[in-house]
Amino acid sequence: MNTVSERSFRKLIRILLLALVWISLLGSAQARIDPLPSWNDGASKRAIIEFVRNVTKVRGPYFVPIAQRIATFDNDGTLWSEQPIYFQFAFALDRVKALAPQHPEWKTEQPFKAVLEGDTKNLMASGEKGLVELLMATHTGMTTDEFTRTVTDWLLTAKHPTRKRFYTDLVYQPMLELLAYLRQNGFKTFIVSGGTVEFIRTFAEKVYGVPPEQVIGTSFVTQFQVGSNGVPELMREPKIEFIDDGPGKPVGIQRFIGRRPIFAFGNSDGDQQMLEWTAAGGGVTFMGLVRHTDAEREWAYDRESRIGKLDTALDEAAARKWVVVDMKADWKVIYPK
Amino acid sequence: MNTVSERSFRKLIRILLLALVWISLLGSAQARIDPLPSWNDGASKRAIIEFVRNVTKVRGPYFVPIAQRIATFDNDGTLWSEQPIYFQFAFALDRVKALAPQHPEWKTEQPFKAVLEGDTKNLMASGEKGLVELLMATHTGMTTDEFTRTVTDWLLTAKHPTRKRFYTDLVYQPMLELLAYLRQNGFKTFIVSGGTVEFIRTFAEKVYGVPPEQVIGTSFVTQFQVGSNGVPELMREPKIEFIDDGPGKPVGIQRFIGRRPIFAFGNSDGDQQMLEWTAAGGGVTFMGLVRHTDAEREWAYDRESRIGKLDTALDEAAARKWVVVDMKADWKVIYPK
Repeated sequence: MNTVSERSFRKLIRILLLALVWISLLGSAQARIDPLPSWNDGASKRAIIEFVRNVTKVRGPYFVPIAQRIATFDNDGTLWSEQPIYFQFAFALDRVKALAPQHPEWKTEQPFKAVLEGDTKNLMASGEKGLVELLMATHTGMTTDEFTRTVTDWLLTAKHPTRKRFYTDLVYQPMLELLAYLRQNGFKTFIVSGGTVEFIRTFAEKVYGVPPEQVIGTSFVTQFQVGSNGVPELMREPKIEFIDDGPGKPVGIQRFIGRRPIFAFGNSDGDQQMLEWTAAGGGVTFMGLVRHTDAEREWAYDRESRIGKLDTALDEAAARKWVVVDMKADWKVIYPK
Repeated sequence: MNTVSERSFRKLIRILLLALVWISLLGSAQARIDPLPSWNDGASKRAIIEFVRNVTKVRGPYFVPIAQRIATFDNDGTLWSEQPIYFQFAFALDRVKALAPQHPEWKTEQPFKAVLEGDTKNLMASGEKGLVELLMATHTGMTTDEFTRTVTDWLLTAKHPTRKRFYTDLVYQPMLELLAYLRQNGFKTFIVSGGTVEFIRTFAEKVYGVPPEQVIGTSFVTQFQVGSNGVPELMREPKIEFIDDGPGKPVGIQRFIGRRPIFAFGNSDGDQQMLEWTAAGGGVTFMGLVRHTDAEREWAYDRESRIGKLDTALDEAAARKWVVVDMKADWKVIYPK
């Protein structure tokens, strides 16, 4: 401070005070701007805004310090669509086709044969065992860097079969606004997905504003090794390490974040334990579910769906007064323009 | 902006411009304040400051965007002392004594018998198997919340056997300054430790300014369950899930952070792969090792030590010109006052 005289210092203080007045004026102007413009006015939107006001009100009874403002979101069906098949599964099928020339044996081996012939019936018949085989063949056996490149390339070229848009365009505009609104209010936003973590990390920062270190997901064992060129690399092994679904979600949250969320959003029974874990934290908490009710603009499914089944969690939400977002009624738009 | 007239708006702009001038004046005054006052002027300090200046210089050739400024630190021997035994092991021994009344069988069973009788020879003889048994008995079989409370209580009461200070006072003041300096320059600081993650998380935020979600470590399997009172909880199972040491460190970094550090600091051979992984990232990177050279103020040990062995990593550091901090020569003080 040796270059700053006392008189100048007083002047600085005066200027800063004036600036503060202006900033607070601008602030109250901004508060009148709707933070969730794609949400219709209704109970869901009001519940979100009331929750955020409560935990951010400095001397209020529900104030939560910034470091503890942890919000967790499921991905498939909560932040982007998941029909007619999980987008990551669409990636796996495309990879089987791309890799087929290097695997002549796939022409006769299930479930690969079914994928190559577009034979949905036999593909379905291969069940969970077949699904895991497809995942292993397309998601492992390469370095982490190679896998990231493959996914990045796919997302830049592949399009959804019926919507004819890039998969990363099929994210929910209202949820993008919610993520941003929470971050503006000091929240750290995390993704906690049953999908595999390195798949989501390739686009989460750009699309959701969620950096890789805030993405938790199902993962494969990786192995550190030094390549033939002397360069260290991480190989993805054909072995599942952690399934981040159902009861795995609180486990993943504890493992990665080490503290309990106060805000959690999902859309299916696989998110139920994450919401229960959040609710049990005490203090003021928010639990939300996206319910797919819009057959026209998106899809409509819940209790009977093979993908994104929402059954027991819907009952628990009703019993415990968790917020259930009715996509058709609550959202003005579904996807970004 | 409907409350703000054009004239007032111009006035605001003028005020903000003036404030900017003042802030930049203050900024240049601050730049003359030493960011690492506990470091002696020397090659290590110069290398750190040069690196930070390079990656933060906006139009410079080595600029790194804030999101990619990831710094990883080992804990034992890098951020706090680790002699005569890892502090976490001291916790385990104290817990065996505290839990002994509930375990009469420990009076006759090794390695517990040795702990209770202070029989170092037999304790050492129990080897790695004994160590794992002690860890399981003291770190698992309780909920995550219970474990956190136990560690917190211990840190508030237990003292180091020879230094007679709380363990959390035996952190290195120069490294606290380094952590803060990096964060001031837009870095996200992570701990990547062979110690168990939930042990370190109990104090890392308060002591190091590193929040739980930025602590990576060795971990146990946890299981989600609903307690008899209907409240969900996470049980710590007596099974190691992940060893975050040696080649496990790059694996842990990829799993938790999902991008490569540009700055990594360790002190032993267990940190070697983390430094190699960082160095292989390309661009400008910083790899550092703390070398324990101060028998008087701390401890002096390296190639022959049972704890914190620094041998092959020291050779690699010399060959590849990584920064080796000479504790005795480089640090004005060791611990906070």
